[in-house]
Order: sequence, then structure tokens, then C-alpha cells
Amino acid sequence: MLDDAALDQIFRQARTHNAFSGEVTDAQLRALWDLMKFGPTTANSQPARIVFVRSREAKERLKPALNPGNVDKTMSAPVTAILAYDLEFYQHLPRLFPHNPAMKDAYVGEDKKQFVATVALRNASLQGGYFIIAARALGIDTGPMSGFNNALVDEAFFAGTTWRSNFLCNLGRGDPSKLFPRSPRLAFDEACKVL
Amino acid sequence: MLDDAALDQIFRQARTHNAFSGEVTDAQLRALWDLMKFGPTTANSQPARIVFVRSREAKERLKPALNPGNVDKTMSAPVTAILAYDLEFYQHLPRLFPHNPAMKDAYVGEDKKQFVATVALRNASLQGGYFIIAARALGIDTGPMSGFNNALVDEAFFAGTTWRSNFLCNLGRGDPSKLFPRSPRLAFDEACKVL
Repeated sequence: MLDDAALDQIFRQARTHNAFSGEVTDAQLRALWDLMKFGPTTANSQPARIVFVRSREAKERLKPALNPGNVDKTMSAPVTAILAYDLEFYQHLPRLFPHNPAMKDAYVGEDKKQFVATVALRNASLQGGYFIIAARALGIDTGPMSGFNNALVDEAFFAGTTWRSNFLCNLGRGDPSKLFPRSPRLAFDEACKVL
Repeated sequence: MLDDAALDQIFRQARTHNAFSGEVTDAQLRALWDLMKFGPTTANSQPARIVFVRSREAKERLKPALNPGNVDKTMSAPVTAILAYDLEFYQHLPRLFPHNPAMKDAYVGEDKKQFVATVALRNASLQGGYFIIAARALGIDTGPMSGFNNALVDEAFFAGTTWRSNFLCNLGRGDPSKLFPRSPRLAFDEACKVL
């Protein structure tokens, strides 16, 4: 079992930050992928894709898609990750799931499109959870956000591709003085049952 | 930053297990929730719900929904978690998101049903990621599975409610001798871009 300091760092004391400074290096971004990639996904499908937005030009491309309350913190964050997924993730299954090279067939075809979209969203979001925890484990503060226009991000970054945006996440060194008070969590007996 | 032993335990050496023994106590299940509950969700919505299936009776209710390859490991696992979500998660927002009590209104209405379902799946799956990592952090081995019939699970466990199944996860002490070889992961440059 992890010690208290580690559990505090990845869960109990970790917070969603609203103001960031510092720098996030390419080496840190690679280390982040090299942790989160090990998290399990359906048939090892790994549908998540990530665009790390760091340059001024790319930040300006992102800006029109942001809800007003998310503009300042995103424009000033060292890096903003676009957590996305590839709707054609299944093309890689023969390599990624060598136990059963026929697994790809379960996803091919017009009548499978809704199923494919569900599997992509489910598993890319699972990987989003791994991403947030892996960042925290590496000492990178996170600010995940759903407050943006997915269609505008897709147009600005993924036009003509099969990638689609899922959520955004600012990365950097969080400013503890800009945190909101922590909001309440559901109690075990509200969210869970043991049968 | 977490030390190598901790990173190994939650990511690098952790595996999806196929055979389980041991016991998972109620205290462990509560500890698991009390870690994963801190993971961030859209507007602190926390749509995930969990049914921990431990009794013989409840396992037998689950059995008909399982793909043949998942029956033996699930029936013999100490606990099988049904990771689910509540499609009416937004009813709790006035309490869970006190910053903005009007947030609930964004989810109410017939025309919001598709949006609500997407937010529920996205965030419950994020919480699924927290669940898997939290279990590993507590020393509980995991075996997440999508290989089952969601509609049958919903009928058997959630009839007449707004809860819907997302994925299953066996919990217990994994048997390392029953592991498959680890499947390949996408390289950084296949899944990520830095702009």
C-alpha cells in the first residue's frame, strides 16, 4: 500500500488549480505518457490522443473555444493538454491486441459507429483519469476543464481527421492562493452498495 | 514526485489480473471510495455509482450477462464491482457544486438527454480511472472488463432506476502465474503531439 504522503499527493490533498506558473518540459510530457500508457483499456485499445498546447500560436487557436471563465487561466498556463480520442482507434488493434487479431472486426462498419464512439469515450476518459493521476504523481499540478466548445476545438485542431476532443487540462505549478474551497464529495452510502 | 516503488505499483508493474483469491473487506471498499472520490469531475458532478457484488446470490444474478471468457474469473473473484453512473447525477449539483447552484439547469430537460449521457459517461469513466489506480494504491489487484452485456446488467441490477452500467472490475489478490504477457503500448509520438 502506498504511504500517506503519496496518497495525499495523488488523491487526498491534490486539487484542481485555477492559476499556473512555471514550465513543463518535453521530458515531463514524455514521462507523463510513459506512466499513463500502462493503464488498462478495453482490448488494450488506447483510444486517447493528446495535443499538448504550449506555443503562443496554438494557444491563440484554442482561445475562441474556451468558456469566458477559462480563458485567463488557460492562456497563462505553461501547457494546456487537449485530451482527445481517435474514432479509428481500432485500426491499431491487430498490433495492440495480439491475443486476438480478429478483435478489430468488432468495430468495423457503419452499424458499429455508435458503439465505437461509446468505447472511445469510455476508454479515453479512463485514460484521462490515468493522465490526471500520473501528472500529480510526477509533481505536475492539473486543472481539468469541460468548459469549452468541443466542436470549435475539433475544427481548429482536428479538421479532416478522426480525432475528437474530450476535455482540456492545464498543466504547471498551481498557485495554492487561488484555489476555491474544496467542494463536498458523495458519501460511500450515497454512491456505493455492497450486495 | 512519487518514488519508483509507488509508480511501479500504480502504473508500471500493475497488471490486469485474470485469477483472484483472498478477501476484500468492507473496510477496504470504503477506503477505496474515500480515495477515488477526491478525483476531479465536471462541476464536481461525481456521476459514478458502484455496486460491489460479493454474495453468491448477487454473483449468480451477474453471471448471465458475462461473456463466456469472463465467467470463471468473475464468479471466483472475492468482489466484482459494477462501475455504473446515475443519469440523474445533476439532481445533486446544488449541494455538490455550491459555487454555482444554477449549474443544475444546464442538465434539465428532454433536449439535454444526449448531453447528460455524454457527461455521465465521460466523468464516470474518469472516476473509473481513479477507481483502478486507487485500488492498486491500496494493494488491491484489479481486473477491469468490458466483456459483458450492459443491457442485461442494467435489467438485473438497475431496473426502474436511473443507474446504468459502465464496466466491471474484479477485485482481490491476483495470481501472477495466470497473467497474459503485457501487450504493447502506443509510443509518445503515435499518441501525442506538442504544438
